[in-house]
Amino acid sequence: MTGSTVAPFTADDYRARMERAARAAADAGLAGLLVAPGPDLVWLTGYAPTAITERLTLLVLTAGQDPVLVVPTLEAPDAAKAPGAPALSLRDWTDGKDPYAATAALLDATGLPHSLKGVGGAPIGVSDNAWAMHLLGLQKALPGSSYASLTEALPMLRAVKDAAELELLAAAGAAADATYEEIRRVPFAGRRESDVARDLAGLLRRFGHAQVDFTIVASGPNGANPHHEVGDRVIERGDMVVLDFGGLKNGYGSDTSRTVHVGEPTEEERRVHDIVREAQEAGFRAVRPGVACQEVDRAARAVIADAGYGEYFIHRTGHGIGVTTHEPPYMIEGEEQPLVPGMCFSVEPGIYLPGRFGVRIEDIVTVTEDGGRRLNDTTRELVIVD
Amino acid sequence: MTGSTVAPFTADDYRARMERAARAAADAGLAGLLVAPGPDLVWLTGYAPTAITERLTLLVLTAGQDPVLVVPTLEAPDAAKAPGAPALSLRDWTDGKDPYAATAALLDATGLPHSLKGVGGAPIGVSDNAWAMHLLGLQKALPGSSYASLTEALPMLRAVKDAAELELLAAAGAAADATYEEIRRVPFAGRRESDVARDLAGLLRRFGHAQVDFTIVASGPNGANPHHEVGDRVIERGDMVVLDFGGLKNGYGSDTSRTVHVGEPTEEERRVHDIVREAQEAGFRAVRPGVACQEVDRAARAVIADAGYGEYFIHRTGHGIGVTTHEPPYMIEGEEQPLVPGMCFSVEPGIYLPGRFGVRIEDIVTVTEDGGRRLNDTTRELVIVD
Repeated sequence: MTGSTVAPFTADDYRARMERAARAAADAGLAGLLVAPGPDLVWLTGYAPTAITERLTLLVLTAGQDPVLVVPTLEAPDAAKAPGAPALSLRDWTDGKDPYAATAALLDATGLPHSLKGVGGAPIGVSDNAWAMHLLGLQKALPGSSYASLTEALPMLRAVKDAAELELLAAAGAAADATYEEIRRVPFAGRRESDVARDLAGLLRRFGHAQVDFTIVASGPNGANPHHEVGDRVIERGDMVVLDFGGLKNGYGSDTSRTVHVGEPTEEERRVHDIVREAQEAGFRAVRPGVACQEVDRAARAVIADAGYGEYFIHRTGHGIGVTTHEPPYMIEGEEQPLVPGMCFSVEPGIYLPGRFGVRIEDIVTVTEDGGRRLNDTTRELVIVD
Repeated sequence: MTGSTVAPFTADDYRARMERAARAAADAGLAGLLVAPGPDLVWLTGYAPTAITERLTLLVLTAGQDPVLVVPTLEAPDAAKAPGAPALSLRDWTDGKDPYAATAALLDATGLPHSLKGVGGAPIGVSDNAWAMHLLGLQKALPGSSYASLTEALPMLRAVKDAAELELLAAAGAAADATYEEIRRVPFAGRRESDVARDLAGLLRRFGHAQVDFTIVASGPNGANPHHEVGDRVIERGDMVVLDFGGLKNGYGSDTSRTVHVGEPTEEERRVHDIVREAQEAGFRAVRPGVACQEVDRAARAVIADAGYGEYFIHRTGHGIGVTTHEPPYMIEGEEQPLVPGMCFSVEPGIYLPGRFGVRIEDIVTVTEDGGRRLNDTTRELVIVD
């Protein structure tokens, strides 16, 4: 890894994102944001430490203050090379010092609002994947301070993509589609799931992915476990095979699923596949600005329930995608967040028949001014493979 | 990924580890342990989810109670296949439910001590890398409960290795040594750091590593940044080159550093290398049961300070290794933990001359009954490469 993403964003882009995030935090009633290494930090600064260790690295954002990145001294030279570094100040701390006391002192020095210094004011937003160890250290160093995770307090921080991000997501989707077009041609029968998975990973890389996050090949009864990744099962003629694959290309995610059949399917297999296809279409058609996320789930789920398979659709309909392959917004019952143009997420209903087979069909969809646009567009018909 | 490690441990091994951990937690005054996906969970159960997501997975350990693994329903089939699964109960929760309320309810159902249910009793130990989001969810669901990170409360949980673990660490070390023997033969001058790094990664894999964690190739002035990973700099005749590489083989870590020179070194380069070599030897010789970790740091540091380079040794002397390449115990001033036979850690002093060059020499060392044993043993003399 290089200590930074390859996404073509400038220090000005990162400055604008940090300002937007600080404003959104203030609007949401947060005293500020504490951002640990991971996707939020990549999105805000372009900085990804080569390893995420027990040493504290934390971006401190508050409205009206310049961003400060607290980093271990050892990692400061790498952080200084991040594309967003010109838009922030680095404050380094050295092995053997207490980084939480140091951070608390730094917070004081930046003139942050009093509430952030721990007198029980507004909560401080903290990135979901910050280490519990670090949160506990801060809770101790700033007694009385309160915290809220970003998914709880600011779930839509990264959800609405700008034009450049949409272009990168579309390019990642196109690479995943090219992968599907190629994988249809490889032999399935007589090979292990792990062999086909290796082909998928190779194709994703060939089409420009720097990181492969998952290559699910779930054949026959394995297809009935939505999270079965891959195994040594030898694929047989007559199997349904769920393919679900994605990763990062130029720092932005792909994620698509298609279900293929080895040889001629039975009538029941065709029927189940048709239902899932209709459900996916219904979910896609529900996408437009102002509609609540849960309506996308309901639209897809209704088709499956009406066909009598409701109990076999055992997961939510979708999840957001951006600098990760899995993030808010979630298309799930109870999520009332309205869709906004620029949001990107999966629409991926499925039916899972225990001990028998599964079907899942998934596209990434982005919200447009008047509906949705698919970022995956290979055929959703049941493809027969060899 | 397969959802489990390949380490040859049985359900009985994992049962014994979980019992030992629960007892150690009770002895340390903790109400119990909450273990999130990551190295602690791998070590305790052999379970590594294929992806670490926002969905809560948590192992609950308390002395005298059977272990319970809270998992998302979707991931329960994979968790059930983990080698440690026969030694625990699975409790799954479904998308759309509140996993923290569900976990709190499950905690009640297991008959855990009252203090664990959140009335301000003993703190609950929580793995360092648990997500802040999950800790915040639990803090809300169990008002009044208090928490301590494992590094703070139970830092030595995984520090003392048993015979099988030592064998695996020795095998990983031997593979890293074989990598060094081979990399000495490749051309350095005229190639990019990233080319040599790729060679290192390939060799580590060839010698059995399933995961490469880092391949530092820091040439000339880049060597003066201890965390410089790798770049596009073309290595030149006359460069010192710090090599620091490692990863996981059969689930256990390797980590070794050597500094080579392209062509004949100057007298100063030889002298600095000699000082680091003596410091590394002094650190190694300080290792024996009962000695405080900080004494290893002091022994190595004294050699460098006495030679007048104290200000250029800008990191601690070492870190533990096991199912990760970076964990407690830390060889650092202030760490009074006594060494115990079976502990494994790096001894890796260095000198970093800004803008000029750096030298680091690192072996993994295990504590024996009467001293220390190196798990890396390639020559520590300055090797000349082409």
